[in-house]
Amino acid sequence: MARTASLSGFPEWLPEERLVELHVLDTLRKVFELHGFASIETRAVETVGQLLRKGEIDKEVYGLSRLQDDDDTSDAGKAGKADPNALALHFDLTVPFARYVVENAGYLAFPFRRYQIQKVWRGERPQEGRAREFTQADIDVVGDGELPFRYDVEIALVIAEALSALPIPDFRLRINNRKLAEGFYRGIGLDDTAGVLRSIDKLEKIGPAKVAELLKTELGATDDQAQAALKLAGIRTEDTSFVARVRALGVTNDLLEEGLNELEQVIEAAVQRAPGKVVADLSIARGLDYYTGTVVETVLVGHEQLGSICSGGRYDALASKGNRKFPGVGLSIGVTRLVSRILSQDLAKASRSVPTAVLVALTNDDSWGAAQDIAAQLRSRGIATEVAAKAEKFGKQIKFADRRGIPFVWFTDDDGKHQVKDIRSGEQADADPATWTPPSEDLNVQVTTVQVPAAAAQPA
Amino acid sequence: MARTASLSGFPEWLPEERLVELHVLDTLRKVFELHGFASIETRAVETVGQLLRKGEIDKEVYGLSRLQDDDDTSDAGKAGKADPNALALHFDLTVPFARYVVENAGYLAFPFRRYQIQKVWRGERPQEGRAREFTQADIDVVGDGELPFRYDVEIALVIAEALSALPIPDFRLRINNRKLAEGFYRGIGLDDTAGVLRSIDKLEKIGPAKVAELLKTELGATDDQAQAALKLAGIRTEDTSFVARVRALGVTNDLLEEGLNELEQVIEAAVQRAPGKVVADLSIARGLDYYTGTVVETVLVGHEQLGSICSGGRYDALASKGNRKFPGVGLSIGVTRLVSRILSQDLAKASRSVPTAVLVALTNDDSWGAAQDIAAQLRSRGIATEVAAKAEKFGKQIKFADRRGIPFVWFTDDDGKHQVKDIRSGEQADADPATWTPPSEDLNVQVTTVQVPAAAAQPA
Repeated sequence: MARTASLSGFPEWLPEERLVELHVLDTLRKVFELHGFASIETRAVETVGQLLRKGEIDKEVYGLSRLQDDDDTSDAGKAGKADPNALALHFDLTVPFARYVVENAGYLAFPFRRYQIQKVWRGERPQEGRAREFTQADIDVVGDGELPFRYDVEIALVIAEALSALPIPDFRLRINNRKLAEGFYRGIGLDDTAGVLRSIDKLEKIGPAKVAELLKTELGATDDQAQAALKLAGIRTEDTSFVARVRALGVTNDLLEEGLNELEQVIEAAVQRAPGKVVADLSIARGLDYYTGTVVETVLVGHEQLGSICSGGRYDALASKGNRKFPGVGLSIGVTRLVSRILSQDLAKASRSVPTAVLVALTNDDSWGAAQDIAAQLRSRGIATEVAAKAEKFGKQIKFADRRGIPFVWFTDDDGKHQVKDIRSGEQADADPATWTPPSEDLNVQVTTVQVPAAAAQPA
Repeated sequence: MARTASLSGFPEWLPEERLVELHVLDTLRKVFELHGFASIETRAVETVGQLLRKGEIDKEVYGLSRLQDDDDTSDAGKAGKADPNALALHFDLTVPFARYVVENAGYLAFPFRRYQIQKVWRGERPQEGRAREFTQADIDVVGDGELPFRYDVEIALVIAEALSALPIPDFRLRINNRKLAEGFYRGIGLDDTAGVLRSIDKLEKIGPAKVAELLKTELGATDDQAQAALKLAGIRTEDTSFVARVRALGVTNDLLEEGLNELEQVIEAAVQRAPGKVVADLSIARGLDYYTGTVVETVLVGHEQLGSICSGGRYDALASKGNRKFPGVGLSIGVTRLVSRILSQDLAKASRSVPTAVLVALTNDDSWGAAQDIAAQLRSRGIATEVAAKAEKFGKQIKFADRRGIPFVWFTDDDGKHQVKDIRSGEQADADPATWTPPSEDLNVQVTTVQVPAAAAQPA
């Protein structure tokens, strides 16, 4: 495996790799639907104006234009840069979802809960864990006017359950709250809270000394203010003890209290319902995004350098229609980032490379019809079956099944006696097409975690 | 329903409409996998050079460029028109699949059978049945060097089975063979067979008189030649009697014989295995495409004006790597065209608009945790369940379920006694969270065909 994509940043999987990805997608869908999230898809394109509404992200956007667009620029637009009506590929699923909610508000029942699994595109330099085309799996709940905070708790629990069901290493949701951070900054006299967040967001990349420097030179913070902000960002607890630790810093502010209370609710529920999966991490900032409360990033334990595999939070003002506001909370799983890592490090494997469980061999060229009848009987019981195309020697037909990764070959002799051979063990036994079924582990493709020796589990 | 897309040609579905689409996609996937087709996806973009390899289609292609592409034109390319390395969105799944096969030939087992369900884009003028972004579902079998003709038969049967499993009106696969047509044209002395095919392809649009005119003026055909070509195109039979009818036209040609024999095999198998679903239709040409043998179009009975909902055929030279050829045969279902028609004419409906079967109501605000425990028990048995976010009056919580389309509401009183109410019938009964299950028709969303009165079944 680990072939190189023929176009940098646009990964494509082999069939056996795609089975791993399908397993991930099916698992996520199942968990989301069990929790009552409805599927939607939005178109791949938005207008440039819609995408750039929040500014500062146009560097990453792919604009569209019809190759032979001689006379018609209104809908596609060659000069994508300038024309807000020009079309471009979406770079996430949150902005399109917000537009969808506003457009269809009259047809939706609020709070509206949806999942959305689609490709998105970003024209960034490709690197490990960062592709130009990749799949995201999002869940969001959006309210009409208001949205109870309880959904912030629920969303975190649903995602913890979904990630737990995947064939991936252990993970941690690292959760913070913008109100907590912003209230604290105001409480210590730093009013450019967006500026502070932007600096704190660089903590993991450049370290505390340089962040302190930034806070002082760019935002005019005093040394005490910078140190206080860094102390807050240093708090990370697996339970609600972060509340006492923040209080011990001696800052008082109403917004801070609100944030503390919200984050406490999330962590309290997580300790009970997703033990070991969630930490309060007061360094999480989520950069310049549109979040207004809860913010979440997620790391794979032992793969921290891969970056966040699931991020999101609460946004109170992303979507609005006149005076009507649609606050929401949501999380987005980076499916391609996860699947790339699973495949490149052989963390999970499909039990075979094709859906087919049985190849019906041909005794002679005229037996194709009879073989199709047998195959139809097997398929009617959910057994994926194909029929050989040519009546080659049995050895050759077995070899064909072996090459394709098909575990069973079905033979019918001239007297109409049926036998089925497990070509892995070589065992062959009489079988009735009306009743035979393979062992349950062979019925469908299974994707299972590969057990890595403890010593090898650490990344290089 | 039948809202207008906010961007012409880019349809988006409401959640209950998406359930119909999901049902169609799930059904196709299931049938394809039961027949041993493996899933793959290719990237959404190809190089312009790759897409235009067969020429004459660039009018429809969307080129890509990074909106802030200041210095870097090598990978995206502003001047898409000229640069074959520029990127563009794929307009079908066959051309990308051919590229994928060539690139990954060393990793695939041939004959390689895959299904591929993805969006494609064409910058055409949108109209009924023709979108700019739409989903195709393709199956193909590709061989290394050679591919037995039997796969042409098999592909037609698999598609007939797949379409039969969908909640759509009756359909007909209309099948022809390029060898048959080309051999016949040569046999009557018309050597520009591509030109004749192109004219015959217009038969349904402009009628036989104008096609005869075209053949004479553009290709220099005599009146006899034009009439013979039209006679051939007029043959349409539900069984293999087309062979005798072609022979009765008195033309002899080796390629014609080969084509007659091939088409006979397909129709013979279809009469037996997909009775009533397939016709030999000697007017089918498939325009300028890359087909070399079997060609297929499919109409919905009573919806013929919608155009073909499933097309394809045999291509012997689409993919090659040096001297190595990869002949293939495949068919492509126009999923969006089908789903649009199902939705706009209410041909099928989802039994409810959300996946959720049960809403667990809250007795008081502190009961959220206990309600989550009940929900988890139900989910562990595959029952999609959500929990109310607020302890409003029961009447309000029932109203919420009703508005969301959730059939059951779960109540727990202060003594811990559980009851479940079917809010459609009003029936309420004791229930145990460890054992209760809804009736099987309520467990998952069902998508079923809507029975239309016979008189209304005819389109306007």
